[in-house]
Amino acid sequence: MGRTFDFTLTATDGRARTGVIDTPRGAIRTPAFMPVGTAATVKAMLPESVAATGADILLGNTYHLMLRPTAERIARLGGLHGFMNWDRPILTDSGGFQVMSLAELRKLTEEGVTFRSHIDGSRHMLTPERSMEIQRLLGSDIVMCFDECPALPADRDRIADSMELSMRWAARSKAAFGDRPGHALFGIQQGGLEEDLRKASAEALVDIGFDGYAVGGLAVGEGQEAMFACLDYAPEQLPQDKPRYLMGVGKPDDIVGAVKRGIDMMDCVLPSRSGRTGQAWTRRGQVNIKNARHADDPRPLDEACACPACRSYSRAYLHHVFRAGEMISGMLLTWHNLHYYQDLMGRMRDAISSGEFNAFEREFHAEREAGDIPPL
Amino acid sequence: MGRTFDFTLTATDGRARTGVIDTPRGAIRTPAFMPVGTAATVKAMLPESVAATGADILLGNTYHLMLRPTAERIARLGGLHGFMNWDRPILTDSGGFQVMSLAELRKLTEEGVTFRSHIDGSRHMLTPERSMEIQRLLGSDIVMCFDECPALPADRDRIADSMELSMRWAARSKAAFGDRPGHALFGIQQGGLEEDLRKASAEALVDIGFDGYAVGGLAVGEGQEAMFACLDYAPEQLPQDKPRYLMGVGKPDDIVGAVKRGIDMMDCVLPSRSGRTGQAWTRRGQVNIKNARHADDPRPLDEACACPACRSYSRAYLHHVFRAGEMISGMLLTWHNLHYYQDLMGRMRDAISSGEFNAFEREFHAEREAGDIPPL
Ligand SMILES: [Zn+2]
Ligand SMILES: [Zn+2]
Repeated sequence: MGRTFDFTLTATDGRARTGVIDTPRGAIRTPAFMPVGTAATVKAMLPESVAATGADILLGNTYHLMLRPTAERIARLGGLHGFMNWDRPILTDSGGFQVMSLAELRKLTEEGVTFRSHIDGSRHMLTPERSMEIQRLLGSDIVMCFDECPALPADRDRIADSMELSMRWAARSKAAFGDRPGHALFGIQQGGLEEDLRKASAEALVDIGFDGYAVGGLAVGEGQEAMFACLDYAPEQLPQDKPRYLMGVGKPDDIVGAVKRGIDMMDCVLPSRSGRTGQAWTRRGQVNIKNARHADDPRPLDEACACPACRSYSRAYLHHVFRAGEMISGMLLTWHNLHYYQDLMGRMRDAISSGEFNAFEREFHAEREAGDIPPL
Repeated sequence: MGRTFDFTLTATDGRARTGVIDTPRGAIRTPAFMPVGTAATVKAMLPESVAATGADILLGNTYHLMLRPTAERIARLGGLHGFMNWDRPILTDSGGFQVMSLAELRKLTEEGVTFRSHIDGSRHMLTPERSMEIQRLLGSDIVMCFDECPALPADRDRIADSMELSMRWAARSKAAFGDRPGHALFGIQQGGLEEDLRKASAEALVDIGFDGYAVGGLAVGEGQEAMFACLDYAPEQLPQDKPRYLMGVGKPDDIVGAVKRGIDMMDCVLPSRSGRTGQAWTRRGQVNIKNARHADDPRPLDEACACPACRSYSRAYLHHVFRAGEMISGMLLTWHNLHYYQDLMGRMRDAISSGEFNAFEREFHAEREAGDIPPL
């Protein structure tokens, strides 16, 4: 285990890449999917179970943690890793996206964002400097620049102004982050769906210099087709030799399409959120366990899946405990979904390594199109 | 693993007893605490985690399971053990107690109880014969007689009538149960707080002949002092060579007092229910993790406890996740509570084996009276 943060590409297949990010807290195999641990827990999971799914890294949310239990409290208690019993790498977002979507009475200025907590109405301010401080207090391994992005669609002027503000904030983030060996700071490309603005943003970020680069401002309502059109050029505008992180994505087919286009890291609440509402993601597509067709079905959700939900329980059981409102429903389906996502990432890494990504992709879509097993 | 159901007493200390119930699905060390798996799940726990706390046997609820997913469905799916992924022994109650406390429009006759489901209003009837059929369909290892009991206080005539009805139902239960090698049928003593009625009930049950005997109709509002007064004679009225099961008990001090008085088995929702409301049971008494005193406390709930909640998390974390409404709060506290209960049973078994139950009991009360560790 080295003391530095490094990225090594081990294979490419078309634009798809596989490699490894070495950190003092362990290696992150890429393409990597990061489960979301919003409030210092991946909902419905124990951290050892998250690790058992194959996750190398978690995402933590600056906005949630700064409000409760607060970054200062977590720092006094020894940092987020020990607090939540996860000793592998953690990436934290900057709070910028969530403050604009969750907080109340937001006011955006050049300095930063003032807002009221959605929990207790208390007043707070987030700036690039404060975001860096919070992420340092949390002990995050991969720190994200504080940025701002408009919901899409938005007009070009709004997107350009926002991108330029984010680039000024990126420079302030870099200055505030300072020199922290073994910790990484990622810049975030903005520019909406405008190729030239994306290019300008990428150049501004490279001028500042970061350990990795995120594609930000996507998965905000533009749809998969528009997102893929942007990913046809945006990752290539970023350095080849640094990790590229697509924020907040996505469904399994979004993820496959993003990896195909050169993305190395992703995060999304979808697998855990779906698990709590009776939705399972499988290689045959989405299965709604609430559906009455499962009530008497002795078969597992996916007979080829090695997760505890599929190894030890029938669809009938999963259906029953969902209907009965039992916590084990969310626990088992979340575990399955996270296992499926990690399994998908592993299959993509293998396919890229062996130069068979196109075959993988065809098989992925063919299995989904065939759909769920027929009812008994 | 034998094919028969046997009870062997290995030591006694005063009236306290320790031994083992052998069943085809494994041994049950007594005194035994049975976690409650109401709707085919011990709430907030995976079954392998319940086993890891040291539980040898679970309790399932006939009333809940007959309504959802239904006993017939569970039988079609191969029985309750496979359905809920628990291969050790299961005891099922008869539904008699819960139908009187949970169902709607109940009507009690000599034949049985008609009622409407609290879930969907559907009409059902429970009789001794139907209860035996349901428990057979579930695949229960220890089957309870269908009985009836009044809430206390109740007048002597009501208690006597009810007890006599329950004894007639016990005979019908025995006839309906039939001959099922490897499965046990337990009779249930009634008679409220009336020693002579308890005696008459015990004699009636012994005349019928059962594999074990429960003390029923306690923990229904009479208070600990009255319950212990009854336990000063009720267990001794039952056969020495059969397991004695005190139904629905209780708090840790209730359990210690019951074991002291010759009880071998108990069940209660308390440790799991408390775990979901932020209440922890420890050797130092009850700890309310909601309390603000824990917000900055880096210490475990109990530094001597080997459960995951105590090994890997601070009080500050447990406080945070409870306040944030996270599922891991109920998962960790339930695990701790069940672990504490099983640890308590193990310490009692050891104390009885070594003839040191009185010393154990003094230490148990002294630790609780000393109370929780002082705030930092
Ligand atoms: Zn699975
Ligand atoms: Zn514990």
